[in-house]
Amino acid sequence: MSNKYSHIHLGHGSGGLMTRELLDEIIFKTFSNPFLDKKHDGAILDIAGPLAMSTDSFVVSPIFFKGGNIGELAVHGTVNDVAMCGAIPLYLSLSFIVEEGLPVPQFREIVDSVKRTADTCEVQIVTGDTKVVEKGKGDKIFINTTGIGTVHPRARISANRIQEGDKIILNGFLAQHGMAIMSQREGLEFESDIVSDTTYLHFLVRELLDAFGEKIHLFRDPTRGGLASVLSEIATDIGKGVVLYEKALPVEKQVAAACEILGLDPLYVANEGVLVVIADASVEAEVLDLMRRNPKGEHAVTVGSFTTEHPSKVVMHSSIGGKRVVSPLLGEQLPRIC
Amino acid sequence: MSNKYSHIHLGHGSGGLMTRELLDEIIFKTFSNPFLDKKHDGAILDIAGPLAMSTDSFVVSPIFFKGGNIGELAVHGTVNDVAMCGAIPLYLSLSFIVEEGLPVPQFREIVDSVKRTADTCEVQIVTGDTKVVEKGKGDKIFINTTGIGTVHPRARISANRIQEGDKIILNGFLAQHGMAIMSQREGLEFESDIVSDTTYLHFLVRELLDAFGEKIHLFRDPTRGGLASVLSEIATDIGKGVVLYEKALPVEKQVAAACEILGLDPLYVANEGVLVVIADASVEAEVLDLMRRNPKGEHAVTVGSFTTEHPSKVVMHSSIGGKRVVSPLLGEQLPRIC
Repeated sequence: MSNKYSHIHLGHGSGGLMTRELLDEIIFKTFSNPFLDKKHDGAILDIAGPLAMSTDSFVVSPIFFKGGNIGELAVHGTVNDVAMCGAIPLYLSLSFIVEEGLPVPQFREIVDSVKRTADTCEVQIVTGDTKVVEKGKGDKIFINTTGIGTVHPRARISANRIQEGDKIILNGFLAQHGMAIMSQREGLEFESDIVSDTTYLHFLVRELLDAFGEKIHLFRDPTRGGLASVLSEIATDIGKGVVLYEKALPVEKQVAAACEILGLDPLYVANEGVLVVIADASVEAEVLDLMRRNPKGEHAVTVGSFTTEHPSKVVMHSSIGGKRVVSPLLGEQLPRIC
Repeated sequence: MSNKYSHIHLGHGSGGLMTRELLDEIIFKTFSNPFLDKKHDGAILDIAGPLAMSTDSFVVSPIFFKGGNIGELAVHGTVNDVAMCGAIPLYLSLSFIVEEGLPVPQFREIVDSVKRTADTCEVQIVTGDTKVVEKGKGDKIFINTTGIGTVHPRARISANRIQEGDKIILNGFLAQHGMAIMSQREGLEFESDIVSDTTYLHFLVRELLDAFGEKIHLFRDPTRGGLASVLSEIATDIGKGVVLYEKALPVEKQVAAACEILGLDPLYVANEGVLVVIADASVEAEVLDLMRRNPKGEHAVTVGSFTTEHPSKVVMHSSIGGKRVVSPLLGEQLPRIC
């Protein structure tokens, strides 16, 4: 395959021999496992419920960026979404929409990243699909992953369980993914070593559930729209208020500087490795302690809490003593960030 | 939403308020169910294994065609793929990649079709995602659906169970979807009333498994690449031969004529409502009888059988007494058919 074709052709999406060759030489060889090796239309999984299911399509541009690529992102994104349900992700489907003309080595590199990332995350790619669209009708490659996993036996994740006083705890620095992508975009390039934070969060989630069970009320990963949008959504949905402490918000110097140059607020910028834990106040110290001992949570910090004082509103207490309402993001700040 | 915006904007993919509005007014309102109403990153499903899981991305062009649209196709396609595993589809994820500028009424029509089709198929849309890409970086709308379902207790579906003498039975006419799309494509329009056969097959599959259990060795739905590609794949995979009877192949007159005009062989043209049943010869008559009593199988017919005589080859016995090898499709015949 790789010798015969240097680029993806429309024929690779035909369902005929060219498709078969592409799948055999790149997909099946890379992911070989008992599910995929059957080459059927789907996979049979021996798994007991209750299950969590989540889906995400990835359209990030550029497809290769500092700290990762669209393949890695597609695994992390869905693994994390399943984890946010309080579940342990086990199986992923993988579906490509490839634009005609994508260099085969780039496709191969992305597929290899998916495989490597899935292995690290201990999830298996069990079924898939590959479509090819004409040049100019797509943009290099889009990926959908859909994940399923078993709900953690101690999980009782629900926004409705959030109470006054609940703590909002983050695992690390904000806005890194969005600013990494931004720094590589045409016309917006500037000197920076900002690296995407794309990573998996499910092992940390499992540890937290093992240790604290129902004391954890909600997990969220603030991707598109950033932390501000996620907290605004929750506040609106449950009719409680959020207090945020500006001083506590973890933003790396370089990211803060880049945001300032571009007039962006890190609160609205996408993250791909940030975990928001909403926990009962009684376990705050222990949660922080556990998180800080996990490599994915070493910078864990409490950034705010829930209140009944200003229902449905997120209010920021600024470093200099002021207060302001944090509105949700309206339109597009950074298109195609994930 | 509909009053404020006539077309999809990039901001509808931002993760902010515009996204929320689009989701609230079109997606959540349409699909409202206990899973989606939680507006979480995923759904919790109470389901017992073993499960079948299948995924498909749909990139058909045009998105509205005679007999259906991309929304219907996206439900049928995945429902059928899950059914082909010998399972009863229950839950679907739904993920859109929308090109900026898609008229909102078109988006709404597609979403409504998804809902209607899911209801008819008795599957629920439990989780989803919506991304927006810039004009010229996609093509109106692409849809991914991923389905899960419970394996039928009597199913023992596996190509390895196919034996010499097994019958190849079709539920109806070939090549209708491909030729319906073709007849609408720019530059290839001709007078025709050919209508896509897009439909669901899982209720028929369930009836067949209820009645015949392990006597059914394999189900396949010959979409991209057509019947020829599916049978070639199976023949190659299991090292047995396929005999096909040209006279028996069900092709409607108008479809046959259109294929002739365009120099296409209906054996290679995509179907979206064709079921291939590979059954033990001992139940052939009963299988045909059961299928013919189901509206999705009223034209059921045996078109061939498996043999050990020409391993891995599909051989067509022509109407005039000749024989020819049916090769698998090589490259692209009809791009973006599904």
